[in-house]
Amino acid sequence: MPTRIPSVWRRYASTTFTAKSAPPKTHLHKRIPDSSFPKGYLLNGVHSGVKKDSSVLDLAVILSTSPRPTSAAACFTRNAFKAAPVLVSHDVLKRSAGRARALVVNSGCANAVTGKQGLEDAWAMAHATDALLSPAPQDTSETLVMSTGVIGQTLPIAKIVSAIRGTSHATLGSGFAAWERAARAFMTTDTFPKLRARTFALGAREFRIAGIDKGAGMIHPNMGPPHATLLGCVATDAAVKPRSLQSALTYAVERSFNAISVDGDMSTNDTIVAFANGAGAEDVLEEIDEGKDDGMFEAFRDELTRFMQELAQLVVRDGEGATKFVTISVDGAASYADAHKVASKISTSALVKTALYGEDANWGRVLAATGSAELSTPLDPTRVSVSFIPTDGSKHLDLLVNGEPEIVDEARASEILSAEDLEVRVQLGLGNESAKYWTCDFSYEYVRINGDYRS
Amino acid sequence: MPTRIPSVWRRYASTTFTAKSAPPKTHLHKRIPDSSFPKGYLLNGVHSGVKKDSSVLDLAVILSTSPRPTSAAACFTRNAFKAAPVLVSHDVLKRSAGRARALVVNSGCANAVTGKQGLEDAWAMAHATDALLSPAPQDTSETLVMSTGVIGQTLPIAKIVSAIRGTSHATLGSGFAAWERAARAFMTTDTFPKLRARTFALGAREFRIAGIDKGAGMIHPNMGPPHATLLGCVATDAAVKPRSLQSALTYAVERSFNAISVDGDMSTNDTIVAFANGAGAEDVLEEIDEGKDDGMFEAFRDELTRFMQELAQLVVRDGEGATKFVTISVDGAASYADAHKVASKISTSALVKTALYGEDANWGRVLAATGSAELSTPLDPTRVSVSFIPTDGSKHLDLLVNGEPEIVDEARASEILSAEDLEVRVQLGLGNESAKYWTCDFSYEYVRINGDYRS
Repeated sequence: MPTRIPSVWRRYASTTFTAKSAPPKTHLHKRIPDSSFPKGYLLNGVHSGVKKDSSVLDLAVILSTSPRPTSAAACFTRNAFKAAPVLVSHDVLKRSAGRARALVVNSGCANAVTGKQGLEDAWAMAHATDALLSPAPQDTSETLVMSTGVIGQTLPIAKIVSAIRGTSHATLGSGFAAWERAARAFMTTDTFPKLRARTFALGAREFRIAGIDKGAGMIHPNMGPPHATLLGCVATDAAVKPRSLQSALTYAVERSFNAISVDGDMSTNDTIVAFANGAGAEDVLEEIDEGKDDGMFEAFRDELTRFMQELAQLVVRDGEGATKFVTISVDGAASYADAHKVASKISTSALVKTALYGEDANWGRVLAATGSAELSTPLDPTRVSVSFIPTDGSKHLDLLVNGEPEIVDEARASEILSAEDLEVRVQLGLGNESAKYWTCDFSYEYVRINGDYRS
Repeated sequence: MPTRIPSVWRRYASTTFTAKSAPPKTHLHKRIPDSSFPKGYLLNGVHSGVKKDSSVLDLAVILSTSPRPTSAAACFTRNAFKAAPVLVSHDVLKRSAGRARALVVNSGCANAVTGKQGLEDAWAMAHATDALLSPAPQDTSETLVMSTGVIGQTLPIAKIVSAIRGTSHATLGSGFAAWERAARAFMTTDTFPKLRARTFALGAREFRIAGIDKGAGMIHPNMGPPHATLLGCVATDAAVKPRSLQSALTYAVERSFNAISVDGDMSTNDTIVAFANGAGAEDVLEEIDEGKDDGMFEAFRDELTRFMQELAQLVVRDGEGATKFVTISVDGAASYADAHKVASKISTSALVKTALYGEDANWGRVLAATGSAELSTPLDPTRVSVSFIPTDGSKHLDLLVNGEPEIVDEARASEILSAEDLEVRVQLGLGNESAKYWTCDFSYEYVRINGDYRS
């Protein structure tokens, strides 16, 4: 069925393209048992009125109700135009010394480039949510704020505050249904709610972690510690010191959300927050501490990293118009930073991404992208190898070995490229450092979605 | 009429898109009077057999026949995987101390990532062309070499050498017809031959300059002095010292070919060469010299810059699938480098480029791209302004003024965006430096061309 022609194009001579469609992704939204969700969190997702359609959720509230102190950490976008909710959340974390207990999120409007009014509105969201934590007014806000949607428009703040105030214990929940409603309220161009939860062992004990994220376009996060329209929230019932939580989150973001690319654009609103409330560790007196030599911090950090990689990959799988999920692995770099740079260059190359869409074994484009990275240890073309790795366990295909092109079996190349998932591996031959990136292809559908976003 | 569906897509569920077509660009190929072409150059374009279709030209030879010494200069790609012709041309320029007299160019095969064989082939092209300059063997080659096309395949070198050897004074010419054949032999996905020539005054005298370039994709050059699949050649009959020619070329490339972007990819083969043979200055004894305080160098450099900007803009106008020609102007930067970085970020943003294709006044995307540039003087969001400038002389439209969004007249915005040419102006409010970039939009057609390039 032909898609609608944007009205602005009707006056042009037109061409009709018939192209493969992005595969349906709804199977990536999975039912998760209630027992996998962390203890001590209450949440909800409602329609507040930011979005027109009253059947669409646009406001999520997440509260920690743990009797123990809740730690919070965040990574924010490094874009110079930080949206009001980014500035407010940064301020809250600083003043509370990492002891925030709530998160309020709206979709449909980014509250970015909205001047003083934007800041007032973001604070109003924080304060209305604070009132759900404690009826008496507090000196310091304990609420982080996130917004996503169109830039340059102000929020319908009265509707949002009214929806937050209408939150009661009757409307809040702690199981799959509540988490799913919250995840739906995060969505913009996402085609499914992005929610994962799991239990994990730490020492002799079992804890739980759950996470929500959203984003399908303007995805090329570059987030740093207290400085990340990719939004994400992870919550665990382990007990972690605030500074250790920030350290683990920064490490995990670098290897997850900072290692994905849909279109190479960095948003004004990218934010990832983490909460650790200790509600699953009632008999443990001490919080996980990076300074202690008991291996607990590293175990938690690595668990968090794996979990966040899964969440980040959902964004790539739901990339606007994406038909492929491609892992870019760079090995043999002199430093992690160099490996990350090469992987980023390949992942963001429009020529590599269109070749992947066309299922064209054009390794020359992979190489051109590799060579354009400015590295601290210069590339030696005679040491570089490129292979395609199928994800079905069958044999890999070498395309370039030590700078010399292989005679490529095109039929085998087509076979590997026809799969939805594949890996492109680049060996630099300069050292022992590796980095991975996850990216998608560039399709007609991407152009349609983004050429006609606001209408 | 529906376009052909690549066979690999036939097994997918398909979507049909009806979209505006790229406007025809053949009017950009203009007839130029013979008197505008520089004296003392002979050239040709032939079919050598690199490309299959025998009616398509794929080999160009340009010779300087001036009785005075000919100066040569070049800017090459900074990609770590420099193609064999780039390495050979670099070597020739170094050994000849900037006194090369010939250029040989093939299209259809990039001779990139071709190992030792590739180097041998590039040298064979140089030596065969040297023999046209002087029948006696020379110690030092005087020929620069350029190749463009698919990466990773070796040249049909016997056919190329045979075609070069077949060049005779009967086949060479110096007027429009010869320059046009040469320009056609440069073409790959270009939709028209890119050729310009003009006369210019220097002091009391008149000289001529002509230039050919090619390129429609993999366009985001980053070229430096003796280190640019964008190929370009400019030739003048002014007399310029080799080092001064290199200095003027480097300056001009930074403000022309290094300030255009089609898709953000940097090729392994980008090369721009310049020749100055003095054939139009028989009565002038001295070459233009940067070291002399007579204003001649600056006058020549600025003339060269304007001429190369015209050539570079032809590449953007012929950008793969492009329907828009967009000038990105960044003013008020603290340094030229900062202004250039911001202009580059906006010009390469997939979100900005798809919004331009969709004729969507989404200034938020311009701002997000601006904010993602890492500048030496940090941006102050409250000082940034964004406007759309129509190219028909009508009033500009302010979208953001000192960080505050304007209430935008959407009808007026649509009017400006519906034009093929427009300018996006960003004022940073931090200083007095400016830079311009020229870019195009991102269309369905771009995806089709690049998803199906090799087949």
